[in-house]
Amino acid sequence: VSRTRFDMMNCAAAQALNRIGDWWTLLIVREAFYGATTFTEFQRPLGIAKNILTDRLVALVETGIFNRVQAKPGSSRYRYELTEMGRDLLPILIGLMQWGDRWIFGKGREPLVLLEAETREPIAKLTVQNKDGRALAADKIGFEPGPGATAETVARLTSA
Amino acid sequence: VSRTRFDMMNCAAAQALNRIGDWWTLLIVREAFYGATTFTEFQRPLGIAKNILTDRLVALVETGIFNRVQAKPGSSRYRYELTEMGRDLLPILIGLMQWGDRWIFGKGREPLVLLEAETREPIAKLTVQNKDGRALAADKIGFEPGPGATAETVARLTSA
Repeated sequence: VSRTRFDMMNCAAAQALNRIGDWWTLLIVREAFYGATTFTEFQRPLGIAKNILTDRLVALVETGIFNRVQAKPGSSRYRYELTEMGRDLLPILIGLMQWGDRWIFGKGREPLVLLEAETREPIAKLTVQNKDGRALAADKIGFEPGPGATAETVARLTSA
Repeated sequence: VSRTRFDMMNCAAAQALNRIGDWWTLLIVREAFYGATTFTEFQRPLGIAKNILTDRLVALVETGIFNRVQAKPGSSRYRYELTEMGRDLLPILIGLMQWGDRWIFGKGREPLVLLEAETREPIAKLTVQNKDGRALAADKIGFEPGPGATAETVARLTSA
């Protein structure tokens, strides 16, 4: 995959994918949601090579998805905490989990159940909704050029 | 990235990422949402090499994300149509777009506006919700082993 080309696309999904970098990012974010904060807590469950994890964490801090915080004053040990930008990846991560549960594992074979912490009730299936919260099927969604559309995007969407 | 390791994880997000394969898949699905059905309609806007697109479309048909349909009886030309499994990637794709709009392009610079087709009103921001449709912040979401959890998953979530 050409990273450069994705980076140049006038498309927020392409740019998001480019910024996320690779699949590991989303699994590192997954571990953070499960409560991981230290290098070891990320490394062990992922089974990721230490040099790859080191590279990814540096990149994720640069990107703004994690903050790196000293574990204690004067310590050379660090904790990695999701920023608001990082926490905002949650719908994407949960969308992936629900898609995998439905289409790969199948009903009754889900590895994990996501719950509302307070009630212990399973969360809802992620749906695309109109402004009033009504679910929209794929064929009920339209699109138009946004304020940041290039001339090329405008031409494409007009001809679509 | 080791595809094999993702494939072996007892995690629906990892398995979903493994099945999706690479970033191109999501942009090919994006084009399908915009109305592309023929090889040329996918190839031109993506600027993807023809041999790569051919490989991806074969894989996406095998995976069950697209159906390949003869354009006309007896024709050697084909249309590619999203299956239900493919359309079910829409929340993930829209999650990526909204994340990119918010964190990369920024407010007022979005390349594209997603609308409810009927009312032409912008769609809502994708949110994780409880069963009654109330939005849940990341720290209000819990998890427990599902029916398909391995012993390792159970041990991890119990210690988390």
